[in-house]
Amino acid sequence: MARPSNALKSPRRPRAGGYVIGVDIGASNLRVALATMKGSLVGKWRASTKESASPDVVIQQIRAGVDELLAQCSVRRECLRAIGVGAPGVTDASSGVVIATSYLRGWKNVPLRDSLESAVGIPAAIENDVKLAAIGEHWCGAAWGLSDFVFIAIGTGIAAGIFVNGQLLRGGGAAAGEVGYLIVPGTSEVPVKPGAAGSLESTISGEGIRAQWQRLQKNKNAAATTLDATEIFELARRGNRDATDVLQRTARILAYAVYNLSVVLNPALFILGGGVGRSRVLLAETQSILKQYAEPSKPRLALSTLGEDAQLLGGIRLALDRADAGAAR
Amino acid sequence: MARPSNALKSPRRPRAGGYVIGVDIGASNLRVALATMKGSLVGKWRASTKESASPDVVIQQIRAGVDELLAQCSVRRECLRAIGVGAPGVTDASSGVVIATSYLRGWKNVPLRDSLESAVGIPAAIENDVKLAAIGEHWCGAAWGLSDFVFIAIGTGIAAGIFVNGQLLRGGGAAAGEVGYLIVPGTSEVPVKPGAAGSLESTISGEGIRAQWQRLQKNKNAAATTLDATEIFELARRGNRDATDVLQRTARILAYAVYNLSVVLNPALFILGGGVGRSRVLLAETQSILKQYAEPSKPRLALSTLGEDAQLLGGIRLALDRADAGAAR
Repeated sequence: MARPSNALKSPRRPRAGGYVIGVDIGASNLRVALATMKGSLVGKWRASTKESASPDVVIQQIRAGVDELLAQCSVRRECLRAIGVGAPGVTDASSGVVIATSYLRGWKNVPLRDSLESAVGIPAAIENDVKLAAIGEHWCGAAWGLSDFVFIAIGTGIAAGIFVNGQLLRGGGAAAGEVGYLIVPGTSEVPVKPGAAGSLESTISGEGIRAQWQRLQKNKNAAATTLDATEIFELARRGNRDATDVLQRTARILAYAVYNLSVVLNPALFILGGGVGRSRVLLAETQSILKQYAEPSKPRLALSTLGEDAQLLGGIRLALDRADAGAAR
Repeated sequence: MARPSNALKSPRRPRAGGYVIGVDIGASNLRVALATMKGSLVGKWRASTKESASPDVVIQQIRAGVDELLAQCSVRRECLRAIGVGAPGVTDASSGVVIATSYLRGWKNVPLRDSLESAVGIPAAIENDVKLAAIGEHWCGAAWGLSDFVFIAIGTGIAAGIFVNGQLLRGGGAAAGEVGYLIVPGTSEVPVKPGAAGSLESTISGEGIRAQWQRLQKNKNAAATTLDATEIFELARRGNRDATDVLQRTARILAYAVYNLSVVLNPALFILGGGVGRSRVLLAETQSILKQYAEPSKPRLALSTLGEDAQLLGGIRLALDRADAGAAR
C-alpha cells in the first residue's frame, strides 16, 4: 500500500516548528522551561513553592511562568504544542491525576492534567517527578541507550524511576518506585502512617541525615547542628569522626537498598540523583561497601549527568511525546 | 494487501495437530509432560535428579522421559512440535544458556537449549524454573489476566518470577527475581559467597526454617529435630510455642520481603508457591503482619492455584510459543 507522499518526505513533520514546555513542581521550587521541538532549551524560569501551596496556586504559577518565558523569548502563544509536568508524589500518568503527595499538603486525587490543559490551553501530560527525571536521564543523560536501569533521587525525600525492558515501570497502582519506604537493616521497622516519610527516607534523606548528625551532636553539646547533608559529608571527607559515622551509616543503608533493588530488577546501572544523592563522597563510600556484595550480580553505580535539570528535561521529553501523540490523532 | 486465503481461514493453523513437551528440572525431581497444541495435558513422567547430575545426564533423562511418554500415549515422534524447559538457576532465555545454578553443581554456562534441540530433535526454549512457574500462573493460574504480579517460590530455595507491564522481567543480566538474596531485618547482612544460599533464602527457605527449629530444639535437648517446614507450621497451628516462634519469625521476614517488593514494583498481586510457600498457615500469619504495612499501597497475597504443576504448565506454554515462532519463520 502506498503511503501519502508528504509522509514519506517528512515522517517527523508534526514537530517542524513550535515549542514545548517542561515543568518540575518541586517540594521547594517550581521550575518551568521552554524548548524547541528538537528539544533544545531556549529559556528557564523559577519560583518558590510553599508546602501549603494548593493545586490552584501552583497552576497559576505555572501559567505565569509560561507567560514570562514566552515574552522573554519572543515566542507567540500559538506556537506552543504541549506541556509536560512532574509532580512530587504518587501520580497516575494515564488518568492524569496526582493521587497523593506528602510534600504539598492537600494534594489528593488532583486532576492536574485536565486543570493544566484548561489553564494553559495546550495538550498536557503529567508524571511523578522522579520518574520524569528517569525519563530525562534515559533521553539524554547517564541512562542513554540502556533498557534496564534505576534512577534513585535522594533529597528532601527518596524515590526511584525504574526502566525495565525499555519501559518506565509504573506498577498496578502507579506507586512503583516508592523506594523511600524500603525496610532494610538500620532503618525503622515500624509501619509508616499515611503522609509520613518512609523507613528508608526517614533515615537517609537530607532530613534523615541531618537528624543522624544532630543526635550525635546533642550528646556532645556541640554547636554545629545546622549543617546539611552535603556539608556533613564534606566534614567526613576532611576526617571528622562523627561526620564519618553518619556517612558510613548512610552509605551502608543505601548499599542495602541498592543491593535489594539489584536482586529484584538486575538493572544494568543505578544512577544517583537529587541534592544529596549526587554527592561524590557518598557514591565512593557506597561503592566500596557494594564491592563485597557481588552475588548474584554486582550492582554498578554512577552519578546523574543531568543534575537538577533531569526533571525539566524529562518534562520536555514528555511534552514532545504528547505533541507527537496529539498530531497523530 | 490480500493475505493468502489459507491464512485467513485458519490463523492458528500451525497449532492444528501435534504435541509439545514441558519439562521442569527441579533440585530433586525431573518432570516431563506431554500436551496437545491446545495446552491440554495428556501425560506426565517423573524421575529423581541428584545434586551432582551433569547436564548430559539430565538431557539423557529428558530424552528417556519423552520416549516413554510418546509410547504411553501412542503419539508418534513426528507429531512433536517443540519443548519448553525450566532450569533452576540464572538462565538466559535469549541465548538459551544456563549461566549458573547453586543446586545442580557444575552447571555453569551450559548451552542447554542447543543441546536439547540436538538430543530431542525438535525446537527448544529454556527459562529459569521460577520465571517459568510465573508464566504458568499467568497463562492459567492465579495471575490470569494480570499485567503486574510477583510469583514467589519458597522451597529448597527462594526466587521470584516477576511480570511488569504484561511482560516477564528478566533484567540486564538475566538475574532479575533472585529475591532469595534480599537483605531485610532478621536476615544475615554478611555478603554471600558464590554458590552459597542468599540471605533471605538461608533464613526462610525450607532448609532455613528447619535450621531455625533445630536451633531452638538443641538448647532443649528435644527429640523432634527432623521435622520439615510444613510439619513445623502444623505444630504452630496446634499451639506449640517453639514452632509458633519459628512461624512468626519466618512470616515477619517474608512480610518485609513482600513489602519491599511491593514498594519497588507495586504489583496487583503476590502469589506464593513452592513446597513451603503454599502453606496456608504461613500465608495467614504473613497477611496479618502485612495488614499494618499499608503505605504507599497494601500488598495483596494469594496462594498458587497450579501448585507443583506451575512450572510444567509454564514449560508447555513456552513450548507452544516456540512452536508458533518456529511455524511463523
